[in-house]
Amino acid sequence: MSQKNSADLTQLRDQIDAIDTKIQSLIAERAGIAGLVAASKRHNKSAVYYRPERESQVLRAVKARNQGPLSDEVLVRLFREIMSACLAQQKPLKIAFLGPEGTFSEMATYRYFGHSVQAMPESSIDQVFTEVEAGVADFGVVPVENSTEGAVNNTLDMFMSSPLKICGEIDLPIHHYLMSKQQRLDDIKIIYSHRQTLAQCRGWLKSNAPDIETVAVSSNAEAARRAAYSEHAAAIAGQTTAALYGLHILHQQIEDQADNATRFLIIGNQLLAASGDDKTSLMIAAKDEPGLLYHILRPMNEQGVTMTRIESRPSKRKRWDYVFFIDMIGHVDDKPIAATLREIQRFTQQVKVLGSYPKSV
Amino acid sequence: MSQKNSADLTQLRDQIDAIDTKIQSLIAERAGIAGLVAASKRHNKSAVYYRPERESQVLRAVKARNQGPLSDEVLVRLFREIMSACLAQQKPLKIAFLGPEGTFSEMATYRYFGHSVQAMPESSIDQVFTEVEAGVADFGVVPVENSTEGAVNNTLDMFMSSPLKICGEIDLPIHHYLMSKQQRLDDIKIIYSHRQTLAQCRGWLKSNAPDIETVAVSSNAEAARRAAYSEHAAAIAGQTTAALYGLHILHQQIEDQADNATRFLIIGNQLLAASGDDKTSLMIAAKDEPGLLYHILRPMNEQGVTMTRIESRPSKRKRWDYVFFIDMIGHVDDKPIAATLREIQRFTQQVKVLGSYPKSV
Repeated sequence: MSQKNSADLTQLRDQIDAIDTKIQSLIAERAGIAGLVAASKRHNKSAVYYRPERESQVLRAVKARNQGPLSDEVLVRLFREIMSACLAQQKPLKIAFLGPEGTFSEMATYRYFGHSVQAMPESSIDQVFTEVEAGVADFGVVPVENSTEGAVNNTLDMFMSSPLKICGEIDLPIHHYLMSKQQRLDDIKIIYSHRQTLAQCRGWLKSNAPDIETVAVSSNAEAARRAAYSEHAAAIAGQTTAALYGLHILHQQIEDQADNATRFLIIGNQLLAASGDDKTSLMIAAKDEPGLLYHILRPMNEQGVTMTRIESRPSKRKRWDYVFFIDMIGHVDDKPIAATLREIQRFTQQVKVLGSYPKSV
Repeated sequence: MSQKNSADLTQLRDQIDAIDTKIQSLIAERAGIAGLVAASKRHNKSAVYYRPERESQVLRAVKARNQGPLSDEVLVRLFREIMSACLAQQKPLKIAFLGPEGTFSEMATYRYFGHSVQAMPESSIDQVFTEVEAGVADFGVVPVENSTEGAVNNTLDMFMSSPLKICGEIDLPIHHYLMSKQQRLDDIKIIYSHRQTLAQCRGWLKSNAPDIETVAVSSNAEAARRAAYSEHAAAIAGQTTAALYGLHILHQQIEDQADNATRFLIIGNQLLAASGDDKTSLMIAAKDEPGLLYHILRPMNEQGVTMTRIESRPSKRKRWDYVFFIDMIGHVDDKPIAATLREIQRFTQQVKVLGSYPKSV
C-alpha cells in the first residue's frame, strides 16, 4: 500500500473514532434520560417500565428516517439493542420462553427484546403462560404459527383459559438443511421430509438431486429419525434437528424461497394502548348454527376491517362447538373494530379480545 | 398519572427521539466512511477488509471513554454490533463454527463478530479448519478450553498440521442447570454430574439439596443420560443437554461462581499486526531430554515475558515426543518475545507461532 493511501486510511479511521465518541456520548445521554423516565414512573407507582407500543413507534421512526447506507433491518436491530440496554439499567426484563427446543424460541426472544434481558427457558408452552401469569416473568414468547406446519395448537388452546394478552408478534425466518449419516450427496438414495418441506425445496431438489427418491413423512423430526437409522437416506429438516439425531449437514438453506417463517407471540399482562399501526386478535366461541361464519365475517366487511387470518378449532368446552381465532388490522379502540365486536357479540357465545398490539416492525 | 407528570414523560420521550435521530445519522455517517475504507482497500488490492486488531482497539477506546450509566460490557456489545453492521455493507463475513453442538459455538460466533455475519455450521472441528483453509469461510470459531473440562483436544491437534493462525479469543460463560424427568426437587433421590461440575455447585447443593445423594460420573452428558433412564434421578449439565435428553429444567444457573467459562479461538489466514494489548500462542515440538521444560521456561523468565498457560501433549508424529502449547502476554514482534523464541529454538525441534492476537476485550 502506498504511503499516501496509508495516510488516507489513517485519516478515515480518525474520522470513525471521532464519530464513535459522539455516538457513545449520545447513547450515555439516552440511557440517562431513560433512567429519568423510569424514575418518573416509579414515582407514580406505575409498574409498566416496558411499553411495546412505544418501542414500536421508535423503531418505525428509525425506518422512516433511514436514508442508507445501512438497511432498515440492520438499523432496527441496532436500535432494539440500544433500547434494550437502556431499559435494563433499572432491572433487566425477565422473559419466559419455550426452552427445551432450545435455539429457536430463544432466538425470537433476543430478536424481539434485544440481548439485555434475562431469558428464562421453560419446559412447555403451558409453563411459559404460568410464569407470566404468576408475575415471575414480565413477558413470554410462544410459537403460534409456522408457515410450513400451520398453527401451533397448544398456544391457541392456552388462550381459551388464560387471562394473558398478546403484546406483540415476531416472525423468524426458518431454513431447511439436508442432513444424513453420509457425508456426500452421491451416497444418498432416498430423501425424507414433511410434504410441505419437500415442496418448499422442490427447485433445489430438481437441480441438485434429480435422481434421488423423495418420500413424504409425518414431520421433519420423523424424517431425521429415519435418516439416522438408515445407511443411504437423508432428511430435510431444521439445523437443530441434525444435532439431535447426530446427522451431518450436507447442504444448508436449500429452501427455494426465503420467506418460510415461524410466527411467535409476545404475551403479557397488559392490554396495550394504540401504537398507530396495530393488529387485534380475537377468540370467538360459538355454537354450530347455520350462517355462523357469515355472522362473524359480515360485520368486518361492513366496517371495512381487514382480516389477516382466521382459524377454526373444535372447542374443548361443552357449552359451544367451535372456537375461532381471528386476526385483523387495527386497534380494539378504533371505531370500526369496536363496532365489529359489538355486532359479532350478538351472534356468538363469547368474544374475547386476546390483544391489540403493534404489527411487527 | 397526573397531567403534569404525563407532560414530563412526553418531554423526556421527545428528548429521546431527538437523541435517536442524532445517533442514527452518526451511524449512517460511520457506515459511509467504512464504505470508503473498504473502497480504498479494494483499490489497493488488499483483501483484508476485517482487521481484528483494529476492532479491538476501537472496543478498548469505548471502554476507556465510558463514564456510565451503561456498563462496559453492554457498550462493547453495542459497538460490536455497529461495527459488524458497517462491515457487512460490502459483503458479510463468512464464519465457520462447530455446528452440531448448536447453540454454544454459534453464540460465541455472534458475540465476537456481531450479528451481521453469515454463520456457517460445520459438522466437526476439522471441517471448520478445512473451510477456512479453503477460503470458503473468512474465519472460524473453535472451542479450545473449558474451565471445567480442560483443553478441547481436537482443536490443539489441528494446529499441529494446519497453517491457520489464531486471530482472536473469546470466553463464554457457562451455566449449570439441574434437570430431571421429575418436575419437583422433592422427588429427586440422587443427582449425577461430572466431579468438577458437582464441585462448582457445592454451595447450591448444600443449601437446597442437603439430603440428596450426589454421584460423580464421567461427563455431564453421561449424567443426563442416566437421569433420562431413571425415575428419581437428576443431572447437573448445560441447558442444551436437557433438550437432547428430554429432561425438565428444575433450577437454572446453580453454579456457585459466575466465572465458569469456555474459551473459543478465532482462526484465520492472517498473522495480525500488534493491537497494543496482545497474546501470543506457541506450539513447541521437542524430544524428551533432561531439562527440556527448563530450556523452554528459562528464556521467558529472563526476558520478563508472562506465560498465561502451558499444556503438554504427547506428539502424534514419530520425530519428537512432546508438543507444548504455550500462551504468553505480548506480540511476536515485541523484542522480549522475539528473543525468547530465538532462545527456545536452540533447544527444541520446532517452534511454531500459532498467532499473535488481541486479548479478549
